[in-house]
Amino acid sequence: MVEINEKLIQDIVAKIITGNKPEPKAEIDKDGFSIPVGISNRHIHLTKEHLECLFGEGYELGVKGSVKQPGQFAANETVAIAGPKAIFPKVRILGPIRSYSQIEISRTDSRTLGIKAPVRNSGDLDNSATLSVIGPKGSIILKNGVICANRHVHMLPEQAKVYEVKDGDLVKVETMGDKGVIFKNVLVRVTDTSALEFHIDTDEANACEIKNDALVRILK
Amino acid sequence: MVEINEKLIQDIVAKIITGNKPEPKAEIDKDGFSIPVGISNRHIHLTKEHLECLFGEGYELGVKGSVKQPGQFAANETVAIAGPKAIFPKVRILGPIRSYSQIEISRTDSRTLGIKAPVRNSGDLDNSATLSVIGPKGSIILKNGVICANRHVHMLPEQAKVYEVKDGDLVKVETMGDKGVIFKNVLVRVTDTSALEFHIDTDEANACEIKNDALVRILK
Repeated sequence: MVEINEKLIQDIVAKIITGNKPEPKAEIDKDGFSIPVGISNRHIHLTKEHLECLFGEGYELGVKGSVKQPGQFAANETVAIAGPKAIFPKVRILGPIRSYSQIEISRTDSRTLGIKAPVRNSGDLDNSATLSVIGPKGSIILKNGVICANRHVHMLPEQAKVYEVKDGDLVKVETMGDKGVIFKNVLVRVTDTSALEFHIDTDEANACEIKNDALVRILK
Repeated sequence: MVEINEKLIQDIVAKIITGNKPEPKAEIDKDGFSIPVGISNRHIHLTKEHLECLFGEGYELGVKGSVKQPGQFAANETVAIAGPKAIFPKVRILGPIRSYSQIEISRTDSRTLGIKAPVRNSGDLDNSATLSVIGPKGSIILKNGVICANRHVHMLPEQAKVYEVKDGDLVKVETMGDKGVIFKNVLVRVTDTSALEFHIDTDEANACEIKNDALVRILK
């Protein structure tokens, strides 16, 4: 008999939520507004070691909900992050654990916290900013681990073909509405496990008054 | 003999700072990046009545510094503004007093405060948002007085001729740099007392990593 505990159920839910490779739409109107927006609020990725520092030995993240990119999830757990000028008491952890810890914030957050986080692609952390991270069982100083994430479009190889772009391209991305903007120099990231999504931070979303899942298009 | 007091000196300084009509550049490269950016941090304009409620009868604003638009200045005085979810303790008053009180905040501020401020042009306050305003001598509830200011370009009639635009036009405005954007639907405001300036809020500035006085251009 299998003992059913909360952890096991969470693991199963996580698999169901995150394990399905997204199906690309059969047909994409490549010139139309066809790419959904995903707005990243401030969040943190953690290594196993840092997770255990903050939450205790052997701790594993619980799954609160799915995010669009396959294999990733919003965890039940939050931490406090603290800079010289402010503390944000509840910053969501994004799972699963990674090979590097990274805090992603907006420029507004960066100013509020009193730090100078550089605009970077995920994982490019050399000489990035520093914040304290406080969990229920311990704290860490995350040195060279804080960035303002550079906006980017995720897509699958078959979608890249339709949009006539390739991994690493810089494109213009246009939003709709009265406060519409055209973002220049948007990085295209093509992988086999991507969900079609235009990732921006809250400052960028607010600048064009856009909501999650609103549709944008690539301009050449 | 004239009694010299602080108020008199402030008044004279205000006149010197704000009284000079800006000289348009003799030649503008209308297709080049030639319009300076002015980033509006959260601020408040007050009526005489509201100023006196907050600071006491007969109170007059002191001049802290100039702003680009002629006749306007950053006052020495700040107030606290409070919404359901947060208080900003030091929000700058922009002088001189006006015929209507108005708080201008970013979308990020609006969310932080816990209100829903609409995007509006200055003075268009019907059914806008509400905040409490707290001064050293009293408080007011500013009902229908809180907006996210719609981005706009100020210019003189002679500058409008050079850029081939007219008051009320909606144009595209392009910024430079790695995080450059093209803002769509930017309102052109032409008056005899304008200084050439592209006015945006902090969210918009952060979305394109732009600083005050950086240069932008109009795209047709």
